[in-house]
Amino acid sequence: MQKILSTDDYINGILQKDRIILSKAITLIESTRKEDEAIANVVLEACLKSKNKSHRIAISGAPGAGKSTFINAFGSLLLDNNYSLAVLAVDPSSSISKGSILGDKTRMEDLVRYENCFIRPTASSSNLGGVARNTRETILLCEAFGFDYIFVETVGVGQSETLVKNMTDLFLLLLLPNSGDELQGIKRGIMEMADIILINKSDGDHATTAKIAATQVKHALHLFSENEKNWPTQVLNISSVEQSGFIELQKAIDGYFLKMETSGFHLHNRNQQDLLWFESSLIDELQIAFANHPNIQKEKQDLILKIKKQEISVQQAAKFLVQKHLK
Amino acid sequence: MQKILSTDDYINGILQKDRIILSKAITLIESTRKEDEAIANVVLEACLKSKNKSHRIAISGAPGAGKSTFINAFGSLLLDNNYSLAVLAVDPSSSISKGSILGDKTRMEDLVRYENCFIRPTASSSNLGGVARNTRETILLCEAFGFDYIFVETVGVGQSETLVKNMTDLFLLLLLPNSGDELQGIKRGIMEMADIILINKSDGDHATTAKIAATQVKHALHLFSENEKNWPTQVLNISSVEQSGFIELQKAIDGYFLKMETSGFHLHNRNQQDLLWFESSLIDELQIAFANHPNIQKEKQDLILKIKKQEISVQQAAKFLVQKHLK
Repeated sequence: MQKILSTDDYINGILQKDRIILSKAITLIESTRKEDEAIANVVLEACLKSKNKSHRIAISGAPGAGKSTFINAFGSLLLDNNYSLAVLAVDPSSSISKGSILGDKTRMEDLVRYENCFIRPTASSSNLGGVARNTRETILLCEAFGFDYIFVETVGVGQSETLVKNMTDLFLLLLLPNSGDELQGIKRGIMEMADIILINKSDGDHATTAKIAATQVKHALHLFSENEKNWPTQVLNISSVEQSGFIELQKAIDGYFLKMETSGFHLHNRNQQDLLWFESSLIDELQIAFANHPNIQKEKQDLILKIKKQEISVQQAAKFLVQKHLK
Repeated sequence: MQKILSTDDYINGILQKDRIILSKAITLIESTRKEDEAIANVVLEACLKSKNKSHRIAISGAPGAGKSTFINAFGSLLLDNNYSLAVLAVDPSSSISKGSILGDKTRMEDLVRYENCFIRPTASSSNLGGVARNTRETILLCEAFGFDYIFVETVGVGQSETLVKNMTDLFLLLLLPNSGDELQGIKRGIMEMADIILINKSDGDHATTAKIAATQVKHALHLFSENEKNWPTQVLNISSVEQSGFIELQKAIDGYFLKMETSGFHLHNRNQQDLLWFESSLIDELQIAFANHPNIQKEKQDLILKIKKQEISVQQAAKFLVQKHLK
């Protein structure tokens, strides 16, 4: 029979770098059972107080850009240099099939062999907010555990980038060595989020086009306005297969963190992220509280009948219910 | 000086098919000014009571799949057959640059010449929920106006598909005549939403690969479970340039609506969509009410200070505030 862990078991396990306990703690925070939630909150509060600081790095790119291969290769380099690494993923797009990226572990075959590496695919969840909260809390657990680097891979293009940007320190965007961003399905908005852009697969036959692509991306970046962190987006040619460009990348990452920590932006940014998270947690909690309120549920059913008969608009019905129950 | 329109001006203008008034009414519902909102609600309630019924069709596909060209060509065919058509767009993905698809009108050069056609790019909005609400309400206005067909184009891949699926009757997905959906950036979840899949650009050199692609897609669809509407997803080869496959498409669309209306799914689905909309409106209204509540704002600031000092977790702070103000 499986032993039920206490909050202390979870907290001590994480702080003592027990990967199995970490894994169980993540399952706990992903759970929607009421009793699990109470324990999860205590564990999270304790983890919050740990003074460990990780480098949280978002890794984004259209399907086919080679994110997993890159993470496998660059992650191996970090691990060889005795850094520890956690790899998480956010995949909110498959709402019907509720697909999770189970394939990822097999695509990161080198990483799984390292003692210092932890890979966790995202849990399937029916809503974007749920996925975001789970990932954010998983980051906190991993940070308390003491990982030097936490990679958060975005799977799927679009809304998930903004979410992941809001829970990481540095945003890495992988592009293919083609020209034209429309072809790559990368929107201007995502380009603007990037702190470092990697032209991946800059090898073999692609070497020349990759150089041209890098120049084109640099030109395109000039059109963007300066951002508050005063960091000009760097564009690098890399090859995950040949491991070329990795030293330059490591330098760029180190340079970024040094500059952000010195300028105070790093801390400022994390504070801002907490505020955003607070706002979205408020919405989550409001939803949960509304859903569990017996009177509200009954009144909702009455309003739904009226909506069906077109006696009241959806908007008016919502306004009415909220005004009635807010004090 | 511009005349200020009354609620009656708006309502009568829409019901009497005045396209300029329709345009102004959409601007009104997109407005975030408090006084505009009050008028907009009255206009929407009135439009809700109109008995007009449109065919609401979602048109989706990765960037480069040829959505605009398709809408231009197929829309022209509908208009030539004396149907009226409104074309709307949802583009929630560019959150920093707040880009709108201004280019769309020029890419639909044939459509703009028709008297019976109305094209409206999405308004830029900072959040997905805002874009969704605006589009949904725009659909209501267009339906009251009496358009036979309302096309809702999704711009950007990912989350917007689910939103648009939830406000339309039929979901059309455009694919390029390549094999392999990963290359096209189309997730399984989006394939599952489609009622009709069009292999676009099935012409010239692509004709053979397009046939193969259609077969592959059909095979892939067999893996999906049956859906509640009991409609096997149709796969058609079309060419917007040659206008080939359009008669088959029109037949498929007519067949779909006939079947859904006969089976009762059409009405059932619209009711379900209203319920979903009600749920999301509730969240919107809760947010607005919270933001406008003077005490809550003050208490929020106090909690934010505590979060900064890591005295309370974001989740606990949110829970506390919600419990305190819900009655």
